[in-house]
Amino acid sequence: MAARALASAQATGSRIAIAIDLGGTSLRVALVDDAGRNLARVDAPTDARAGPERIITQIETLMTQLLASRPDLDPVGVGMSAPGPIDTVAGIASAVPTLAGFEGFPLRQTLQARLGRPVSLEGDGIAAAIGEWRFGAGRGFENLVYVTVSTGIGGGVIADGRVLRGRKGMAGHVGHMSVDPDGPLCPCGNRGCLEALGSGTALTTRARELAAGDAHTVLGRGGEVIDSRAIFAAGRQQDSTANAVIDEVANALGRGFVNLIHLYSPDVVVMGGGLSEEFGRLAPLIEARIASDALVAFRDVRLVRAALGQNSGLAGAAALAFGPASAG
Amino acid sequence: MAARALASAQATGSRIAIAIDLGGTSLRVALVDDAGRNLARVDAPTDARAGPERIITQIETLMTQLLASRPDLDPVGVGMSAPGPIDTVAGIASAVPTLAGFEGFPLRQTLQARLGRPVSLEGDGIAAAIGEWRFGAGRGFENLVYVTVSTGIGGGVIADGRVLRGRKGMAGHVGHMSVDPDGPLCPCGNRGCLEALGSGTALTTRARELAAGDAHTVLGRGGEVIDSRAIFAAGRQQDSTANAVIDEVANALGRGFVNLIHLYSPDVVVMGGGLSEEFGRLAPLIEARIASDALVAFRDVRLVRAALGQNSGLAGAAALAFGPASAG
Repeated sequence: MAARALASAQATGSRIAIAIDLGGTSLRVALVDDAGRNLARVDAPTDARAGPERIITQIETLMTQLLASRPDLDPVGVGMSAPGPIDTVAGIASAVPTLAGFEGFPLRQTLQARLGRPVSLEGDGIAAAIGEWRFGAGRGFENLVYVTVSTGIGGGVIADGRVLRGRKGMAGHVGHMSVDPDGPLCPCGNRGCLEALGSGTALTTRARELAAGDAHTVLGRGGEVIDSRAIFAAGRQQDSTANAVIDEVANALGRGFVNLIHLYSPDVVVMGGGLSEEFGRLAPLIEARIASDALVAFRDVRLVRAALGQNSGLAGAAALAFGPASAG
Repeated sequence: MAARALASAQATGSRIAIAIDLGGTSLRVALVDDAGRNLARVDAPTDARAGPERIITQIETLMTQLLASRPDLDPVGVGMSAPGPIDTVAGIASAVPTLAGFEGFPLRQTLQARLGRPVSLEGDGIAAAIGEWRFGAGRGFENLVYVTVSTGIGGGVIADGRVLRGRKGMAGHVGHMSVDPDGPLCPCGNRGCLEALGSGTALTTRARELAAGDAHTVLGRGGEVIDSRAIFAAGRQQDSTANAVIDEVANALGRGFVNLIHLYSPDVVVMGGGLSEEFGRLAPLIEARIASDALVAFRDVRLVRAALGQNSGLAGAAALAFGPASAG
C-alpha cells in the first residue's frame, strides 16, 4: 500500500488532480497530471462490507500517504469514480450493489467535508468514458460510446462533444439493456441483459455449463479452474467448446453494440474492461455483426480497444477535477 | 390543398417560423409561432416515388400557397423534419427507406437555394422530440426520451437540457434496438427490433396470424380488415385474442422502454405516434414492466402521452428555425 511514484517527471506548469477510483474490489487514489499520466498512485483492497464511514477513512488515509509521497505536487481538486447507479447530481449513492451501506449516503458532501477540498463525483462507467475520451482511444472524437466488459458490463457516452449524464447523472447503464427475453437471469433481476450474456461472468458461467457434460474439452480437465484466461487459452489451442463459448459471448456483445450504435450514433465504440485484453479474438465477430446488422448508415462506425486499461477511470476522475473544459 | 387558417390571432411580437414535415405519406408545411401553435397549414400527399426534385417542387409550391394565405406573417426561417437515417450535419439524405432517390442527395443545400432562406434540418424522431420538449408533454424537463409508436417506431432524445444528435445527427434510432434474437424479421433486415415487436405493424401482423386459426375471435370475422383500430375495439369487447396481442405489444414496448431508461436516464418517456391514441390501454402494462424490470434507481421514471399528436414534428421543426435557444 506504499505510494509508488510511477513517473518522476512533472512537466512545468501542468496541473495535477487527485483521482479516486472506488471499485467493489479495489480502491485506488492517484495524482494525475493534465495529460492523464499517473504521477503517483496508492491502492488498497476496498473494505466493501464495512460501510461508507470505513471507506471514507480508507480514502482519507490513502490520500494522506499519497500527498506525503509527493510534497512537490499541488493538486487543483479531487475527482472520483464510484460504482453506480449513483446520483451524481445530488452526490448520493442510491443502492450500490457492490458496496454495503451506501443507500442514501451523501458521498460527495461527506468526502468534501473530510478531505477539505471540492470533490467531483461520477459513476464509474461515465468516468472511464471521460478518461478514454480525454486521454485514451477516444481522443479527438465528438461522439463515443465506452463499454467496459469485465465481471459486469458498464459504460458511458460522449455525444456532441459533451458527457451524456441524464437524470441524476445515471445515463449509459448499457449493461442492463436486455437483448433477449428468454436469456439468462441477470443479477439485477431482469433477463437477457447484455451483462448476463456478454460479460466475463457470462463467459465463465456458460463455459462451466458446457464443460460439465463435455468429454472432449480441455476446460476443467484435472480440476483446473475455468476462468476467462483458461477459456481463451483453450480457444487458442483449438478447443471447440471454448471457442463456441467465446463466439457466443462475442455475438452477444456484437448485438448489444449494434443497438448502442443505433441509439447513440457514436463515431467510435471503445471497448475496455478485462475482456478487452482479448480484443483481437473478440473484435472480428463484433465487427461482423455491426457490418451485417446495423442500419446501412451506421455500418462504418469503428470499434477500438480502450487505451488506458485499468486507468480509464482514474484518468476520467482527474479530468473531472480539472473542470468542464476537460470533462464536458 | 388550400391553406387553412387554423387560428387567426397572432400575438404581437411573437416570432413565426416556416415548418416543413416531410413524411413518407404526407407532406405538411405550416406557419408556427414561438408558442408552437400552427397559424396556418397546407398538406399534400408526398409524391414518395418521384424523387427529390419533385418533392422539392412540392415543398416550394405549398410554401408559396401558405405565405400567400398569410401575407401578414413574416417568418424568421425554415425548419424541416425529414425521415431518417439522414445526415443532418452535412444535410444529406443517406438512404431514406420511405422515399425514393434520396441517396446522397444534398437536401438542405438544395432547399436553401430553392427557397432562398436558411433551412434547419432534423430527422423526424429528433424533430418530434424537440416539439414535445419545447411545446408539449416534455416541457420543463431536462431529460426526455420521445418514442413514436406508429407504423414503425422512431424517437429522439433530450439529455442534460440539450438535443442528443450524435454523429451525423443520427442518434435515437430506438426502433432498431433489437430486444430478441429470435424475434420477427424487421424491414431493416435484423431480427427482434423494437419496431418489429412493438409497432402498429407488429400489432396487426401478429393479430392476423393469430386470427387466422382462431374460431373464437371477432377479428376478421366477415372479412373485416384487421387494423389497429379493429384490434383495440375488439379488445374493449373482451375479445381474448385481441387482448393477448395488445398485451404482447405492450410488453415488448415495456421491455424496450426499460432499456431506453437505463441507456438515456430520462426524467420522462413521452409516447407519441398512432398507437399513443390507445395510451390508456397500453400504458399500465408498460409501466408495470418499468416497475418490475428497471434497476431500482430508475423505477420512478414517468411515462406520459405526447401532447401535440400529429404536430410534434412540425412544432419541433419550427423550434429549429427559432434557433439554439429553442432547440438546444
